[in-house]
Amino acid sequence: MQKFISSLQNPNVKRILQLQEKARARKKENAFVVEGVREIHLAIKGGYKLKELYYNPELFPAEKAENLIPFPADLTELSPEVYEKIAYRGSTEGVTGIFEAKELSLENVQLKNENPLILIAEAPEKPGNIGALLRTADAAAVDAVFIANPRTDLFNPNIIRSSVGCVFTTQLATGTTSEIIAFLKQHKIAIFGAALQASVPYDSIDFTQAAAIVVGTEATGLSEEWRENSTQNIVIPMAGEIDSMNVSVAAGILVFEAKRQRRSSAISGSKFKIHN
Amino acid sequence: MQKFISSLQNPNVKRILQLQEKARARKKENAFVVEGVREIHLAIKGGYKLKELYYNPELFPAEKAENLIPFPADLTELSPEVYEKIAYRGSTEGVTGIFEAKELSLENVQLKNENPLILIAEAPEKPGNIGALLRTADAAAVDAVFIANPRTDLFNPNIIRSSVGCVFTTQLATGTTSEIIAFLKQHKIAIFGAALQASVPYDSIDFTQAAAIVVGTEATGLSEEWRENSTQNIVIPMAGEIDSMNVSVAAGILVFEAKRQRRSSAISGSKFKIHN
Repeated sequence: MQKFISSLQNPNVKRILQLQEKARARKKENAFVVEGVREIHLAIKGGYKLKELYYNPELFPAEKAENLIPFPADLTELSPEVYEKIAYRGSTEGVTGIFEAKELSLENVQLKNENPLILIAEAPEKPGNIGALLRTADAAAVDAVFIANPRTDLFNPNIIRSSVGCVFTTQLATGTTSEIIAFLKQHKIAIFGAALQASVPYDSIDFTQAAAIVVGTEATGLSEEWRENSTQNIVIPMAGEIDSMNVSVAAGILVFEAKRQRRSSAISGSKFKIHN
Repeated sequence: MQKFISSLQNPNVKRILQLQEKARARKKENAFVVEGVREIHLAIKGGYKLKELYYNPELFPAEKAENLIPFPADLTELSPEVYEKIAYRGSTEGVTGIFEAKELSLENVQLKNENPLILIAEAPEKPGNIGALLRTADAAAVDAVFIANPRTDLFNPNIIRSSVGCVFTTQLATGTTSEIIAFLKQHKIAIFGAALQASVPYDSIDFTQAAAIVVGTEATGLSEEWRENSTQNIVIPMAGEIDSMNVSVAAGILVFEAKRQRRSSAISGSKFKIHN
């Protein structure tokens, strides 16, 4: 059932803007907005339910919109003026979806890998950093990303945008620091907290075991609770004027050291088998 | 000679705003603006000449301002209203300096290390990414950072800010891609270009040799000129839905792999000496 909106006064226009701008609106409706073809595809692939699709036919033809939506989502054509109003990005692709949110709870996390690798960020602030973390998590195919004590909901359009959709490609959960620590201990996952005060360099750790890498905020670092409950606190040795690194860069260095070790361990593992 | 400005119409107010906002104004006057105590300290320490210092005495006492400036820079007190006008940041520290720019040319680069490690970014776009790159470069104490085919001048206040002053702590140069390649070849520095198409994983490279790590833009990657002139193109193996990583995260992973190798080579080196 094709619909059409050409009035800026249409209540759906205000509703979509609210869903973009207000975490409270997203929570209330249990929904969020995704703009762009790739992002919408990734959200669908990530198991999110597309409820409504809005498009500007000048930028995104109706047939493409029809092909994009899994039946029975609602399809609505917007006049260019109305689309412009709801477009979050400067250079828009002309298609925006409303998805049903999922509860990102630890209880829903499924760890299929025997030695999972989990990336955890405590109270990250900037959507750009969270987006970069999620891109790293996707590229490394970590088993899950946990956000401890989140300060923003992960369906914030700036996070979706800066993650280029990777917020949908990785298993995600949020929880308090205590809940996440309890989860990790219960699952016998070693905790490696990145702390400037730590004396053990990150590359001396055996990351081939079930491991969680935990990074804190740039301003205050990891909380005491993490530092006290970690299996080992680790440091990236720094040699500059300022001992400070972008948090998503630090997470990338740690996660890809783990990946490097797991790759070379897989290689030696297979060699071993061949020789036997 | 202490000065005081309380009028928003004072021509210096307009001038400072222009120096912040316009690359052309910076170029014309060969000067740039630095806000914040740490950043000003780092610029002075980095050999930049402080020409003028402006402060809001309600936020930054006159004595502190006098202590901060190396004689004979100009010291000017601003009324809170005027300071607010020129303050670039939301939470300002109440002190802003105008520095003389340096020519960031390859000719001025001095490589003191026998096997230097250089980080190169081609045509980076976002100030936030450049800032993160510079923080990584500082943390790793690389010998130099080169920006090839720059799209923005490095004295852009967003770069200074997002680098938390690291734009002043690392040896920096800009040039065309051709000029930088010529420089590297002349100095016998191996070129490792990060390219998604490459088949050689980055961690199989010997980064203990004189090495340049080159990253391209997120949108188009490295130019053909870099890919054709590199000693070896390298890839960070990715395993996700999207083969895309934040450029400053990728640079961090590559630079810290080089640091890791250099650290363990230094350890084995010293062991070797002890055993002999």
